[in-house]
Amino acid sequence: TLSIKCSQSDTYGQQRSFSPNNGPSYPPQSGVGLPPKVFVGHSIYKGKAVLTVEPRAPEFVTLESGAFKIGREGNVFLQFAPAAGTRQYDWDRKQIFSLSATEIGTLISLGPTESCEFFHDPFIGRSDEGKVRKVLKVEPLSDGSGHLFNLSVLNMLINMEESIFVPVTKGEYAVLVSLFNFALPYLLGWNTLADSARPEDTRRLNNANPRSGVDYEWSR
Amino acid sequence: TLSIKCSQSDTYGQQRSFSPNNGPSYPPQSGVGLPPKVFVGHSIYKGKAVLTVEPRAPEFVTLESGAFKIGREGNVFLQFAPAAGTRQYDWDRKQIFSLSATEIGTLISLGPTESCEFFHDPFIGRSDEGKVRKVLKVEPLSDGSGHLFNLSVLNMLINMEESIFVPVTKGEYAVLVSLFNFALPYLLGWNTLADSARPEDTRRLNNANPRSGVDYEWSR
Amino acid sequence: TLSIKCSQSDTYGQQRSFSPNNGPSYPPQSGVGLPPKVFVGHSIYKGKAVLTVEPRAPEFVTLESGAFKIGREGNVFLQFAPAAGTRQYDWDRKQIFSLSATEIGTLISLGPTESCEFFHDPFIGRSDEGKVRKVLKVEPLSDGSGHLFNLSVLNMLINMEESIFVPVTKGEYAVLVSLFNFALPYLLGWNTLADSARPEDTRRLNNANPRSGVDYEWSR
Amino acid sequence: TLSIKCSQSDTYGQQRSFSPNNGPSYPPQSGVGLPPKVFVGHSIYKGKAVLTVEPRAPEFVTLESGAFKIGREGNVFLQFAPAAGTRQYDWDRKQIFSLSATEIGTLISLGPTESCEFFHDPFIGRSDEGKVRKVLKVEPLSDGSGHLFNLSVLNMLINMEESIFVPVTKGEYAVLVSLFNFALPYLLGWNTLADSARPEDTRRLNNANPRSGVDYEWSR
Repeated sequence: TLSIKCSQSDTYGQQRSFSPNNGPSYPPQSGVGLPPKVFVGHSIYKGKAVLTVEPRAPEFVTLESGAFKIGREGNVFLQFAPAAGTRQYDWDRKQIFSLSATEIGTLISLGPTESCEFFHDPFIGRSDEGKVRKVLKVEPLSDGSGHLFNLSVLNMLINMEESIFVPVTKGEYAVLVSLFNFALPYLLGWNTLADSARPEDTRRLNNANPRSGVDYEWSR
Repeated sequence: TLSIKCSQSDTYGQQRSFSPNNGPSYPPQSGVGLPPKVFVGHSIYKGKAVLTVEPRAPEFVTLESGAFKIGREGNVFLQFAPAAGTRQYDWDRKQIFSLSATEIGTLISLGPTESCEFFHDPFIGRSDEGKVRKVLKVEPLSDGSGHLFNLSVLNMLINMEESIFVPVTKGEYAVLVSLFNFALPYLLGWNTLADSARPEDTRRLNNANPRSGVDYEWSR
Repeated sequence: TLSIKCSQSDTYGQQRSFSPNNGPSYPPQSGVGLPPKVFVGHSIYKGKAVLTVEPRAPEFVTLESGAFKIGREGNVFLQFAPAAGTRQYDWDRKQIFSLSATEIGTLISLGPTESCEFFHDPFIGRSDEGKVRKVLKVEPLSDGSGHLFNLSVLNMLINMEESIFVPVTKGEYAVLVSLFNFALPYLLGWNTLADSARPEDTRRLNNANPRSGVDYEWSR
Repeated sequence: TLSIKCSQSDTYGQQRSFSPNNGPSYPPQSGVGLPPKVFVGHSIYKGKAVLTVEPRAPEFVTLESGAFKIGREGNVFLQFAPAAGTRQYDWDRKQIFSLSATEIGTLISLGPTESCEFFHDPFIGRSDEGKVRKVLKVEPLSDGSGHLFNLSVLNMLINMEESIFVPVTKGEYAVLVSLFNFALPYLLGWNTLADSARPEDTRRLNNANPRSGVDYEWSR
């Protein structure tokens, strides 16, 4: 039941070029005294396309008290690039899709015969709303050997349409699930439990923890 | 079979106000030289209500030897707040429920067609026992798309009754399970294994570990 | 099919005493400059007995090269103590059982209707071999609500026999599975991956890693 | 349906020797100022052979910007050695197999009645391609008690053929799954999320993060 057509706009195709190192480019490093940036994109290379997954850390904002809260939840960044020859991929034609925590949860809990579909409009709530549509479909392969990932992007602003397919075997899918399960607590900031759940913090917890108050489910 | 009625006491309703930032307030930060507090509540926003989950670290107590033990196990704090308009929630009407380790385990292992129900009395063992009753029900949605979380609070002290429903999709539930699974070892202090399972501690283990003694299952 | 009899030797019973704090005693702390010992026993309290689980870190030994290897794998320590009244447990009658990695794996993968049984002889390979027998049985509860943990100890050296039962609900079992899954890599030292899988170690890996050699599956 | 024959080349057999400590040898430690190397091979000892699994950290390479990327993904190293007597193993006859991330994922997701098979040619793409063939088969044991691991190596360069079998119980397999699940994020570098998902890095994230740009799925 996979009926999505794959077409390619002429305009976009002419801009294509092939980077010699056959991979995505990396932005310059910035920030003094911070741990170095590490790029950990994990790629699933197939004959017709490649799928790369990479986590994006959440952003924190400072509260007046000096405490922090999550300003933007982290996500997992998907990059799809079509093949441009044997073991070469056309990164200039790559399409991207950013998985939210809930979408990650959906992929983690997807049964071997289940499908899911996510719709993104990058301009939602803005003047160009509806002009770019992205659809990620994940469906079981007909031979039961895994799932097919398909990202379709329709961009009416530059008259471009692209649909890229990457078959993902059960083993590759299990790697994704393991990575996603590992990443989720970090994407939502729960890894900071490692700082607060320390015996050395006993005094703070005893004296200043807000949950000692009456609000703690009436000190249940 | 969802037959819980949702009613609202007049008295309580008159106290309602809407905070402009439409979110929970944060207590002031305290404690010098400690890692900053980080608020990592993860929210599931729905049309009629929002559910926020947040971990609470355990509390440790110091033993005479200088060692520590868990004084109070950590938990996961649930906040339910009803909607007060489009994308606005009435945090003054919020109801809270604190999940113990075992209740977290129950939610982690809940099958897609299973239900569970937890009863809390915040005044248990005290003079007001029985005057506030909280019930958290988690039941499969009739269309099989996930689970319905329902917190009902009956507070006879202030003549208040509240029942808040939040439908949770499979993907959202999988995120909760991932967070809960991550959090459990921290809530019970097992993360301190990261300190004791170090090769550098070899000497302590060889010389002073109590398990070298005869109590170690007869040195099995 | 639970047919184990629970009997209690007279001799052993006379030694019994009830500690006022109603809990296990803690050995004195030793070792200067080391992280403080943290006791993180997690207890499942039931009407007739209590079960406490606690991880034991592995022991490392130093090689001539200055490197380390695991000298003894960690384990999970089970303590069973019978009730001695309402919310009081008789820790002097406690029986202990030390779960190996494989036994932990068996409990992690135990299906809801499956059973398992482990036999330990603390004097195996020594002159008193066969004189103390410990059997831990884990069987599904007849009402499907969880598993029954039963530790039976027959000690012919002091003419003592004890059998303690603790029913464990599904939620409690899920907590154990979560803790055990978390603990296993630490018990086997794999947490040291956190040290070796660092980008800062690039030089060592490039220059000195033994796996650059011909032994690395012929540099596959 | 296990029909693999186990034969042993004469040439290779004459080189055999038995190390007195009956275990693998460890290479000398190198690298100043780095955390000490820790060997954490986990062994499954059986009557006819032993299987040892050990993780290998990834290798990072430095980019011009000072950032890092994964140069080579980590893997899990399997060593099979046949028995040479009671509780003695012939490490000189050991055969090795290096599991990639996807192969690890396949083993993690293998059902109790499922099989898998991996083929490695350590000389692939080189002049000796095809002269050494390694096959790892993992098949359910006929009595349903676990899986049989079988590594067959055919080395036409030294006229050697070896096939080693290790039966792995369900509990032992669960330990492997737990270790592999733990290791995968480290093998692929995702553990560096622990550095980037820190509230202290707020400024970098606000000012310099590439994802604030237009490429971030059009700032979705």
